[in-house]
Amino acid sequence: MTTEQPRTERLHRVVIVGAGFGGLETAHRLAGAPVSITLVDRRNHHLFQPLLYQVATASLATSEIAWPIRYLLRDRAEVTTLFATVSGVDAHRVLLDDGDALPYDTLVLATGARHAYFGHDEWEPFAPGLKTLEDATTLRRRILVAFERAERETDPQRRAALLTFVIVGAGPTGVELAGTIAELAQDTLPPDFRNIDTHKARVVLIEAGPRVLAGFTDDLSAYAQRALESIGVELVLGQAVTECSADGVVYGGHSLQAKTLIWAAGVRASPAAEWLNAASDRAGRLQVQSDLTVSGHPDIFAIGDTVIVADADGKPVPGIAPAAKQQGRYVANCIKARLRGETPAPFRYRHAGSLAQIGKRKAVIEFGSIKLRGTIAWWIWGIAHIYFLIGVRNRISVAISWLWIHARDQRAARLITQGSSKVVR
Amino acid sequence: MTTEQPRTERLHRVVIVGAGFGGLETAHRLAGAPVSITLVDRRNHHLFQPLLYQVATASLATSEIAWPIRYLLRDRAEVTTLFATVSGVDAHRVLLDDGDALPYDTLVLATGARHAYFGHDEWEPFAPGLKTLEDATTLRRRILVAFERAERETDPQRRAALLTFVIVGAGPTGVELAGTIAELAQDTLPPDFRNIDTHKARVVLIEAGPRVLAGFTDDLSAYAQRALESIGVELVLGQAVTECSADGVVYGGHSLQAKTLIWAAGVRASPAAEWLNAASDRAGRLQVQSDLTVSGHPDIFAIGDTVIVADADGKPVPGIAPAAKQQGRYVANCIKARLRGETPAPFRYRHAGSLAQIGKRKAVIEFGSIKLRGTIAWWIWGIAHIYFLIGVRNRISVAISWLWIHARDQRAARLITQGSSKVVR
Repeated sequence: MTTEQPRTERLHRVVIVGAGFGGLETAHRLAGAPVSITLVDRRNHHLFQPLLYQVATASLATSEIAWPIRYLLRDRAEVTTLFATVSGVDAHRVLLDDGDALPYDTLVLATGARHAYFGHDEWEPFAPGLKTLEDATTLRRRILVAFERAERETDPQRRAALLTFVIVGAGPTGVELAGTIAELAQDTLPPDFRNIDTHKARVVLIEAGPRVLAGFTDDLSAYAQRALESIGVELVLGQAVTECSADGVVYGGHSLQAKTLIWAAGVRASPAAEWLNAASDRAGRLQVQSDLTVSGHPDIFAIGDTVIVADADGKPVPGIAPAAKQQGRYVANCIKARLRGETPAPFRYRHAGSLAQIGKRKAVIEFGSIKLRGTIAWWIWGIAHIYFLIGVRNRISVAISWLWIHARDQRAARLITQGSSKVVR
Repeated sequence: MTTEQPRTERLHRVVIVGAGFGGLETAHRLAGAPVSITLVDRRNHHLFQPLLYQVATASLATSEIAWPIRYLLRDRAEVTTLFATVSGVDAHRVLLDDGDALPYDTLVLATGARHAYFGHDEWEPFAPGLKTLEDATTLRRRILVAFERAERETDPQRRAALLTFVIVGAGPTGVELAGTIAELAQDTLPPDFRNIDTHKARVVLIEAGPRVLAGFTDDLSAYAQRALESIGVELVLGQAVTECSADGVVYGGHSLQAKTLIWAAGVRASPAAEWLNAASDRAGRLQVQSDLTVSGHPDIFAIGDTVIVADADGKPVPGIAPAAKQQGRYVANCIKARLRGETPAPFRYRHAGSLAQIGKRKAVIEFGSIKLRGTIAWWIWGIAHIYFLIGVRNRISVAISWLWIHARDQRAARLITQGSSKVVR
């Protein structure tokens, strides 16, 4: 018995902070390696962020896109999942906010990003962003409450402000939110209200750059713009928002009265760079070496939205799930190679493609030189997202939810929670 | 055009407060009557309370047992749904907390009940009850966080307290909660944890009366007791809880250390009796006439959990969904009869039956002289509950969720929300 103890001690200790796409992939790909793994997250669930906007717009239930982390790793005896908040890193120890510390031989920081307000954090209460399940249920509540309050409002100007929804930022999240809110107002809600005509709700998408979905080619971007306009989204391009308040937004000198603002314009990396006192860019993203280690910290890898890394063409790797997963896989292979005494080749990002849903049966897809749009793109978008969900049960559940939305315009999760009419007003 | 206005005005105005089983049934059964209806609720959703404990125990998602009220009444042009909080009633007007008032010709109060602590409201923070969706997600969070904290706790005594779950009150809700938490600990969670053996979790059900499920016959009650014990629930009968605190409970001089307490022991009616300054019993329930009107208020009906009414044998009508629905149907017929100038017969409660789930494939059912238990009762319980859910989509969804629980011991909704590890501790 006593001989076994030292052998266990000698296992290489990997600590992974963050169970998003990057961190979870690292843990998955380390299966079979002679390591013990501790995966720390301050949430108990892994979140399928690409569909988070569908929770915010009452299309999907929270449990359809989230899984308990420890459930996903239940069959891996060498993995310990910790529900804890990291407060810093010192010499080969991850510090937890409750005073505990986790010693590591190799550390993987996959701590993600939050939305950012470009120095205007005071806008957050008026224009919340979308990164967590709570963000999504908060947005859902705000959107649904705006319609409820409009139904009871007799002043035409205040009613118009309640029925105006502004989304700041026309990247995939902004476009998907705008498209879905427009469909909610146009297709789902009209028969339910008596005093308001929800068809008249305005959905305004404001983008500082010259076009929507800037990550796509010009023609797909132009298609997306037409598709958005066809479902009633008003586009404001080339205008930066200069103020967000309880009354609405200001852009380019214009003031737009709106009671619901949503921020989809920027992200700020987790404080990982601060924990290490390491170099970062303006968005707080760690600068990493070609093997995804942090300069001066050869035992610390950093991946996903908390780092800035260039692809082969020198362009930054995008902050999307497939990129984080590629980095997670690379780091796992790196750790295994090092344990064999090998030096791994540098990380190389392979862009598989981009896709975004605009509305019912409308999407854009770019796979290398293949560009698709419209219904066929929407089917591929849907199948791809169901494929990447975890588990048969959630795939069935999401497929049924989408079937109901598309066949009957019904969205099952139209729940105003965390407060009665009294609290939420 | 001008001739139409007066005719609309002359419609009899019915205001229904509360869209639970009773209020919603009243609205449904008034279809076709020459009335205009306003249905007021401070929530935007109707809740299928009989399955609320399954949300609290991570078995079902919130949206599987709740529907937007205005969606349920979307095809009824004469019904207006208001998302608002009632603060009182004066001469033929319902007062809303935002200063508005709704004039009525007939008022139906279907405002339900909350859990009650028998004069010990200070226990509520330690032993929350289960009446709303937020109650359920709060309980779910507490239960799941207790296991998470136990996983990280090194002190054996504190760990034992974290793994002790106390349910106060062994009516249907208490029994169903105790059974499901026991199954969560015995079947669902064991493979997920590394430092704790969740099989060792204690689920203690404390009841002041001499037996569990006192509403059932002695033999079904005895069966339920054996079934609970067979899945590991510890029963404490004939003991009243005399203290609830952050450390646990005290009953009959015994002190039991437990970090998770759940209150399923008593209810208190809504303040409807106070609004009317009318007679009520100790639990705040309005005393009503044989036609379910409030004494001295012939135009005000009160139904459901907010009233106390006797059945033909003089026994109080139980606070269950079918009773509220019967009362709702009766009141709708009453209103229609009165509009025809008729005087309706007194309300007569017909007890269809009682059923309660104890655990997987274990339930008890009493339909008059028919008494069932075990697997057959469980199937009937499940089919009956799916039948009474609203809409095909939710029926499919709940059926799939139950299939996964029973075939794979997986509960899809194991989400700790409303706070990270930092906030919830």
